[in-house]
Amino acid sequence: MYGAGDVRVEKLPDPTLQDATDALVRVVRTCVCGSDLHPYHSLPATAQGRQMGHEFIGVVEDVGSEVTTVRPGDFVIAPFAWFDGTCEFCREGLNTSCLHGGFFSEAQAEAVRVPLADGTLVKAPVGEDSALLPSLLTLSDVLITGHHAAVTAGVGERTSVTVIGDGAVGLLAVMAARRLGAEQIVLMGRHKVRTDLGREFGATDVVAERGEEGIEKVRELTGGQGTSTVLECVGHLPAYEQALGVVRSGGVISRVGVPQYEQAPAGPALFRRNLTLTGGPGAQRRYVEELLPDVLEGRIEPGRVFDRTVGLDETPEGYRAMDRREALKVLVRP
Amino acid sequence: MYGAGDVRVEKLPDPTLQDATDALVRVVRTCVCGSDLHPYHSLPATAQGRQMGHEFIGVVEDVGSEVTTVRPGDFVIAPFAWFDGTCEFCREGLNTSCLHGGFFSEAQAEAVRVPLADGTLVKAPVGEDSALLPSLLTLSDVLITGHHAAVTAGVGERTSVTVIGDGAVGLLAVMAARRLGAEQIVLMGRHKVRTDLGREFGATDVVAERGEEGIEKVRELTGGQGTSTVLECVGHLPAYEQALGVVRSGGVISRVGVPQYEQAPAGPALFRRNLTLTGGPGAQRRYVEELLPDVLEGRIEPGRVFDRTVGLDETPEGYRAMDRREALKVLVRP
Repeated sequence: MYGAGDVRVEKLPDPTLQDATDALVRVVRTCVCGSDLHPYHSLPATAQGRQMGHEFIGVVEDVGSEVTTVRPGDFVIAPFAWFDGTCEFCREGLNTSCLHGGFFSEAQAEAVRVPLADGTLVKAPVGEDSALLPSLLTLSDVLITGHHAAVTAGVGERTSVTVIGDGAVGLLAVMAARRLGAEQIVLMGRHKVRTDLGREFGATDVVAERGEEGIEKVRELTGGQGTSTVLECVGHLPAYEQALGVVRSGGVISRVGVPQYEQAPAGPALFRRNLTLTGGPGAQRRYVEELLPDVLEGRIEPGRVFDRTVGLDETPEGYRAMDRREALKVLVRP
Repeated sequence: MYGAGDVRVEKLPDPTLQDATDALVRVVRTCVCGSDLHPYHSLPATAQGRQMGHEFIGVVEDVGSEVTTVRPGDFVIAPFAWFDGTCEFCREGLNTSCLHGGFFSEAQAEAVRVPLADGTLVKAPVGEDSALLPSLLTLSDVLITGHHAAVTAGVGERTSVTVIGDGAVGLLAVMAARRLGAEQIVLMGRHKVRTDLGREFGATDVVAERGEEGIEKVRELTGGQGTSTVLECVGHLPAYEQALGVVRSGGVISRVGVPQYEQAPAGPALFRRNLTLTGGPGAQRRYVEELLPDVLEGRIEPGRVFDRTVGLDETPEGYRAMDRREALKVLVRP
């Protein structure tokens, strides 16, 4: 990406092993993320550009001398962060705060160097032609992110939930909330094709209105008080303000859309009603391990969020389609 | 209070029963709160003034026809809010969001009308001459507020805690964290007399420095990463920013100091490290009931935060003493 709206596919030298803990992974599927659209809208133009993409599944091509858990030929899933799996944060399950980790940013490619491969990569017993590839790819980001929203919000049986946003993360937050036993799931989104999929994923109600009108609708659906949890899957300030409007007193707002703002109404707006604000990046290995069996055994089909597939050369068109909302989420097949 | 710095003691008509669910309570002890100092610094001058005070213990003088749980002569504790005890929020223990409740604002007086007396008032088996009165009075606000900070932060055994603020709430947040089993309790405060009392209440470390220097000190004391919980007992923006600096990734900031700001850094500052922000008003009846036995049986002595006692006529001097930090917390004996 050379600047807002300017995505180009270019030939770069192949990545190589650099550290003994690295693996090289040939990318079998990657995709475009809603969060990739933020720089697509605002990145200042530069001459050198930057690589893009943080979601991928693939086959291990080579490993460094210290890598013990994966070997060439293994099919692997990479969460969107890399981590050692052994530091104090990793041991607690918070891989995104790994003392030696980082976030992928070059996965829209034919191959990726994966640092700290033993910590990061999760093997999946599938072949490159598996029909499960789209669903497995969601374990790289959008499903584990939606799941993180539901987990950090404390969603369980009989919880009432509002999901803000009908992008792939929002729809999979619906799926995650349903999977955790939520009783009522209100999906706020304006695109009928998407909210229809959200209903199939478990939404019990859909609210197409936004702002005050949307807040009023959610309150009507919830006996006047809103839902005890809100999963904010957008990242823009109006979505946060909407969350404040639909959350029940004493409830939890969990954000997984990357906040596109520094300051927010977080004084009395949260305090006087004993609201809790939580969430963050959800690239935790334990989520991949927890959700993988449900994908492999077909109990959930999160890959349904992909509604267009392109080749690597067509990636710029993938960005355009998602930006125009012609596509919900674009799968890229290198 | 007729404006910033302008507190007067005046003769008003006695309060009377207005609703069948009211009680009239003769105030035996009241006090000045750190939060009373906010209007003391900033209240615009008015001709009519406003009554002040939200903390009191006393003796029931009269009750409305529907009141069943307290009767004249009972010694009672009032949390700083009133509530019905039966609405959906009260049943969940969140009395401060009671659908029919409100907050006291006229307790620096000889008598107070208590709406919804059955929900609000907790009986205590003591006489007016009890040596426990100061400690019982802290159940009206400062102890239950400190306890709320610790509870909502999830403090338990082996939790590490930073308490920001060496006012009465901060010191009793130390006591509450200790009571819940916290392993390490770092108290951030600059007033040695107060932090010495904090050590007696259970603080394992004291950091007198503020801002970046204070943050650095806390990190040194905690293996570089900060504490997993922070109890913010001040309410000003620099205290919130300090909380961001000393909290461990994945940790919780609980605020019980009433925020004196509308906007705060609550975007990536919280998000990227998966921080949780929680807290709010802590006037929950269940806290009074839970902590009362510890006070009655002398296991805790929270009343030690009172270091000056005045008569009702000297209340203005009580404000001045607290504002100048000559007194930690001023007890008022009507």
